[in-house]
Amino acid sequence: MSLTVVGSMAYDAIETPFGKTDWIVGGAATYIAYAASNFVRPINNVSIVGYDFAQEELDELKKRGVNLEGVEIVKDKKSFFWSGRYHMDMNSRDTLVTDLNVFLDFNPIIPESYQGSEFLMLGNILPSLQINVVNQMKQRPKLIAMDTMNFWMDNALDDLKKLITMVDVLMVNDSEARQLSGEYSIVKAARAIMKKGPRFLIIKKGEHGALLFHDDQVFVAPALPLEDVFDPTGAGDTFAGGFMGHLANTRDISFENMKTAVIVGSAMASFCVEKFGPSRLKEITRADIDARIRQFVDLVNFDIKLV
Amino acid sequence: MSLTVVGSMAYDAIETPFGKTDWIVGGAATYIAYAASNFVRPINNVSIVGYDFAQEELDELKKRGVNLEGVEIVKDKKSFFWSGRYHMDMNSRDTLVTDLNVFLDFNPIIPESYQGSEFLMLGNILPSLQINVVNQMKQRPKLIAMDTMNFWMDNALDDLKKLITMVDVLMVNDSEARQLSGEYSIVKAARAIMKKGPRFLIIKKGEHGALLFHDDQVFVAPALPLEDVFDPTGAGDTFAGGFMGHLANTRDISFENMKTAVIVGSAMASFCVEKFGPSRLKEITRADIDARIRQFVDLVNFDIKLV
Repeated sequence: MSLTVVGSMAYDAIETPFGKTDWIVGGAATYIAYAASNFVRPINNVSIVGYDFAQEELDELKKRGVNLEGVEIVKDKKSFFWSGRYHMDMNSRDTLVTDLNVFLDFNPIIPESYQGSEFLMLGNILPSLQINVVNQMKQRPKLIAMDTMNFWMDNALDDLKKLITMVDVLMVNDSEARQLSGEYSIVKAARAIMKKGPRFLIIKKGEHGALLFHDDQVFVAPALPLEDVFDPTGAGDTFAGGFMGHLANTRDISFENMKTAVIVGSAMASFCVEKFGPSRLKEITRADIDARIRQFVDLVNFDIKLV
Repeated sequence: MSLTVVGSMAYDAIETPFGKTDWIVGGAATYIAYAASNFVRPINNVSIVGYDFAQEELDELKKRGVNLEGVEIVKDKKSFFWSGRYHMDMNSRDTLVTDLNVFLDFNPIIPESYQGSEFLMLGNILPSLQINVVNQMKQRPKLIAMDTMNFWMDNALDDLKKLITMVDVLMVNDSEARQLSGEYSIVKAARAIMKKGPRFLIIKKGEHGALLFHDDQVFVAPALPLEDVFDPTGAGDTFAGGFMGHLANTRDISFENMKTAVIVGSAMASFCVEKFGPSRLKEITRADIDARIRQFVDLVNFDIKLV
């Protein structure tokens, strides 16, 4: 029972209508690990950081059962750094700075101790590297999920097309689903994408929730209506962490259980956006999470007694 | 057990990416009546039409239990006519023609036979006329719901503000909720609007579903993911018709039952968009509706058994 996570560990500078922070830990693998560690341990992270990555941040992850053997620390380079500014609608953002730094050299190697991991989450990185990771797994994981982005659809489409035949779950947002499929209708886009590979497709719609597709089945999870989305950075990765954490914990990859996993992911994402970076994820307890999941039950539950 | 509906009965010319129609019956009170008549009868319509309004359309409504005593037929003027073109995303549309015709003279009069109606749905018309209607009801209905639009927020805000203190349920879309409240956050907007009057607020988000607010409670209903939204005209009114039809049928205006009513409204709207105008609403049977509502159960139902 373990989850292997491949992706960035980084620093971000974030500006939102509610405030700004100049230097906060981030990166897909960081958010995924924080979210998933509430449900399953160990989390086996594979990433690369520079000399500037704070030891306290690594210690904090370790304390939560995150295995860092697969995280390379480069002594003479800085960590991946991203800076962005969100607009009022929080769905659009301007990237101000992208300093890849150590990430230019990222060549993920799966340590021997990670082999046999039943669940594999491929965070958003160059598709050829995601392919390499899958190929390094001596035993095919029970479930492989991946994230990607429009940038790779523009610049590495052939690798991406190959990769999606190798995974079970693809997570993209609605505009990425449209781009990848060439279909405007989300339902048609989902069908077209599943034909090309992944048996399960999750389409993330931010404040409008998420859709889970499998064969002819669909499940819709709402986003929790929040007074303020303080900082959406990492919400998608946090969703992925909650989703994979629940599946790895229960080891049940049925559509029924994936629905619950989507709700768990949505609940975790709803915490993520409440404070800058992963700050809120560091605070919450299992009781907070359970209460939040019960809120989702109330949010969508209705009585079908009709006359 | 009856529902009184005030609003337009009109003709539309509609162009969507899937086709066009030059002349099809429309208007809020038409859609509301078609949807609601599946659940409660009679529907007491109050509207105004011209000499060109087809007798077959009136007969079709009568056949469904729609009382037309309150529908004035003007012998020397044409019916309200609207023409619009939808874009690919179906959320935005260009109005090509708005010929108010008879609607310029609309001064809704509640016939004596409609008095005592327990449920009142005020379709989107000039707020001062909506106020007049409420004032004409000798006995305050058990539940009054209203629709409105941004145009009246720009041009008749004082009347609108007065009106919302007189109703129980306000239905608006997300951008209208933001405009009316001056709050960007939907949750804050809902709270601000409910402070100004309506105990219940429904925020419609088209393909992203609808939110029901009451006190500190929230319910989220998804839209049914459809392969194609063929023509969204009337979807909001059809939602209102299903919502009010279910409430008038069950005579239960608890928050719990309103949740079900929102699902019924969403199910009816999902039919409406499948064909031009109200064509699909004219075809469907009660069995179709029940099956569609069961689809909504599958769409949002999940197992909360966690470990």
